[in-house]
Amino acid sequence: MPHISHKGLELPQSAIRKLVPFADATKAHGIHVYHLNIGQPDIETPKGALEALANTKINVLEYSPSAGIQSYREKLCQYYKQHGIDITPERILVTTGGSEALQMAFTCCLNPGDEIIIPEPYYTNYNTFAKLCDAKIVTVPSDIKTGFALPLVDDFEKYITPYTRAIMICNPNNPTGYLYSEKDLYAVGALCKKYDLYLFADEVYREFCYDGEEHFSVLNLPGCENNVVLFDSVSKRYSACGARVGCVITRNSELFSAMMRLAQARLSPPSFGQIFAEAAIDTPQEYFDAVMKEYVARRNVIVEGINRIPGCFCPTPKGAFYTVCELPIADSDHFCQWLLTDFEYNGATVMLAPATGFYSDPEKGRHQVRITYCLCIDDLKAAMKCLEEALKVYPGRTDIKKAPAKKADATKKPAARKSAAKK
Amino acid sequence: MPHISHKGLELPQSAIRKLVPFADATKAHGIHVYHLNIGQPDIETPKGALEALANTKINVLEYSPSAGIQSYREKLCQYYKQHGIDITPERILVTTGGSEALQMAFTCCLNPGDEIIIPEPYYTNYNTFAKLCDAKIVTVPSDIKTGFALPLVDDFEKYITPYTRAIMICNPNNPTGYLYSEKDLYAVGALCKKYDLYLFADEVYREFCYDGEEHFSVLNLPGCENNVVLFDSVSKRYSACGARVGCVITRNSELFSAMMRLAQARLSPPSFGQIFAEAAIDTPQEYFDAVMKEYVARRNVIVEGINRIPGCFCPTPKGAFYTVCELPIADSDHFCQWLLTDFEYNGATVMLAPATGFYSDPEKGRHQVRITYCLCIDDLKAAMKCLEEALKVYPGRTDIKKAPAKKADATKKPAARKSAAKK
Repeated sequence: MPHISHKGLELPQSAIRKLVPFADATKAHGIHVYHLNIGQPDIETPKGALEALANTKINVLEYSPSAGIQSYREKLCQYYKQHGIDITPERILVTTGGSEALQMAFTCCLNPGDEIIIPEPYYTNYNTFAKLCDAKIVTVPSDIKTGFALPLVDDFEKYITPYTRAIMICNPNNPTGYLYSEKDLYAVGALCKKYDLYLFADEVYREFCYDGEEHFSVLNLPGCENNVVLFDSVSKRYSACGARVGCVITRNSELFSAMMRLAQARLSPPSFGQIFAEAAIDTPQEYFDAVMKEYVARRNVIVEGINRIPGCFCPTPKGAFYTVCELPIADSDHFCQWLLTDFEYNGATVMLAPATGFYSDPEKGRHQVRITYCLCIDDLKAAMKCLEEALKVYPGRTDIKKAPAKKADATKKPAARKSAAKK
Repeated sequence: MPHISHKGLELPQSAIRKLVPFADATKAHGIHVYHLNIGQPDIETPKGALEALANTKINVLEYSPSAGIQSYREKLCQYYKQHGIDITPERILVTTGGSEALQMAFTCCLNPGDEIIIPEPYYTNYNTFAKLCDAKIVTVPSDIKTGFALPLVDDFEKYITPYTRAIMICNPNNPTGYLYSEKDLYAVGALCKKYDLYLFADEVYREFCYDGEEHFSVLNLPGCENNVVLFDSVSKRYSACGARVGCVITRNSELFSAMMRLAQARLSPPSFGQIFAEAAIDTPQEYFDAVMKEYVARRNVIVEGINRIPGCFCPTPKGAFYTVCELPIADSDHFCQWLLTDFEYNGATVMLAPATGFYSDPEKGRHQVRITYCLCIDDLKAAMKCLEEALKVYPGRTDIKKAPAKKADATKKPAARKSAAKK
């Protein structure tokens, strides 16, 4: 049998999706699973944009240009203008989701052995894209006590080596929900200029800023034109994860040309998704106002819900729809799996993402989980109740004296669920 | 300014798209360009499938599962069954076009320095996907005199080294149109088993077989279950290149798992395209019958058209919608560019793909061009007339004595077209 490549063998399992077989087995037993593990919003996709696609007369579903449909790229400039960003179509390369944008930029910017500095915890899939070009992720710790604020520039600077090629930020942040300030970003931009580094910025949650906070884009950092590479996507903005339409933007023409050669080899991004996304730019402001209001309410349910449980701590995220919180557990991987295999409360359980996958060293995430608040308020409340009950009976608690290990009805061990999941 | 990566610098330009700026400049001068350079069919996309997508009620456009929508994967098995191929959904990984299928398999199968043996001329974009994993394409010559028949197994065998990891075929072939026989494929399969190699097969033109010939899929090679990796796509089958839906199929479970980890990192293939593709499987046979009839007629126009021109030779392809033909020219790159910058006939010119980009050594393609027959018969006839007139006046002819260089009206040099293209 021919061998798998080294990369094929070393590609990490998705930290977010690795527990899916356990969830499936649990569901097969009629137990409801509240999905707080994945950033799949339940918000309705704008009807207008879906209708626009349905009403588009297509005779031949052609390849689009490799850089994307021209009218869409032009309309995207309008969208960015509305967000205070001045950009022209020839700087925008439309991609298959934000994922392809990351892949293209990493490929064209990073040599084997190059280092990308990222504040941690960080979006777990960056690992795979770095691995694909044999680049190394170097992390700067951010602290749950400060709500995972951006580390000070001095902290970044001490991680810079001759191999450092980029600093990467995600703003607002997945998984922490932290929103970086203009001042933060000027400091990072100055550092990138000083050391001639790329500034990779994932801004796919741009719209999701709460409590009156405003988003500042790295595209507005003066003097950083050749450093900044922006990753964007329509997935979260329009609750349209399945469209698979994103883009990569840079004013660095040499980099743009290299990415275009890669774009041409893969031919084109999806046409249906681009037609949808072009129409979605006309989505009325009321849609977003309602969505933001909903997310703030959901966030509050989660933050209050977690902080009410003895031994738990959840900072208040200012953006996106994630939070990383601390639980009184010895091992988040074990806990998240146990929730699916050994626990139920009122016929339901909760699926969380162990934070171990969001750190360079899994140990740093042993007592933390990432929670997404993409479900409706009633479901989130029920999920919080579930979590509270689970922590009362979980055998792996670290503060066991504080919470007496009362055996609840919920603890019966459904052995069949376990074995099903192991198949 | 930060540096571009070595890969970014070395990524080859698309052999098919590199002349696009010249074509654009020509069009800007009001000259019609017959596109015989690109495999973009003008055939109508099946209306039923487009309507099925338009009528699908979508509330939330969710991520699909990373391996593709389950009902689509099941329906794909039906499609393969109709083509005499027995496969189960868990062997099928749905991808963003055939391009992503190639990229995933190459990444998970090939180590840096590994070699893939490919009969040449071959589809130019394989170069980029090989480059991305630092693999090397090693070519076995096939000959225009035999219609680019698959080289003998002995020929393949002499190129096998300790670094050989795969043999790759495209059947029916892009760019030659050659259709490999069952006997050919048994021989290649045996070789792959003997040397423990992957057998990569690009079968995206499966439906396009002419003159009563039948397609034989590598998935039906007994004993090659762990070797065979199939690339497929709906782009050509349903004239739906913009859907960006393909798949990679293998019965090698270890390889499948590795590709799944990569698939999870990029989240999911496009949902709209999958909904369309699932419905497209119900396209009635009459659609395909009409399409095949049309392509045979087009092929005949091209083959007869080329062979009628003094000094030209075109074999008769048995599949796909490409042919590589020999012209009496010294340099196909120069000729194809000259057609766009210096020539017109009745207000039109022809765009061809120089065959130089389809060979490992461009010299082998200096007298050849790839022609696609994706345009309607009238356009193809007009394009053939154009080509005939162009060859009468082209200054770079190699058999200039045979064809007297009569200065035709068509030869006036539009200098402005040239300069526009150089911008």
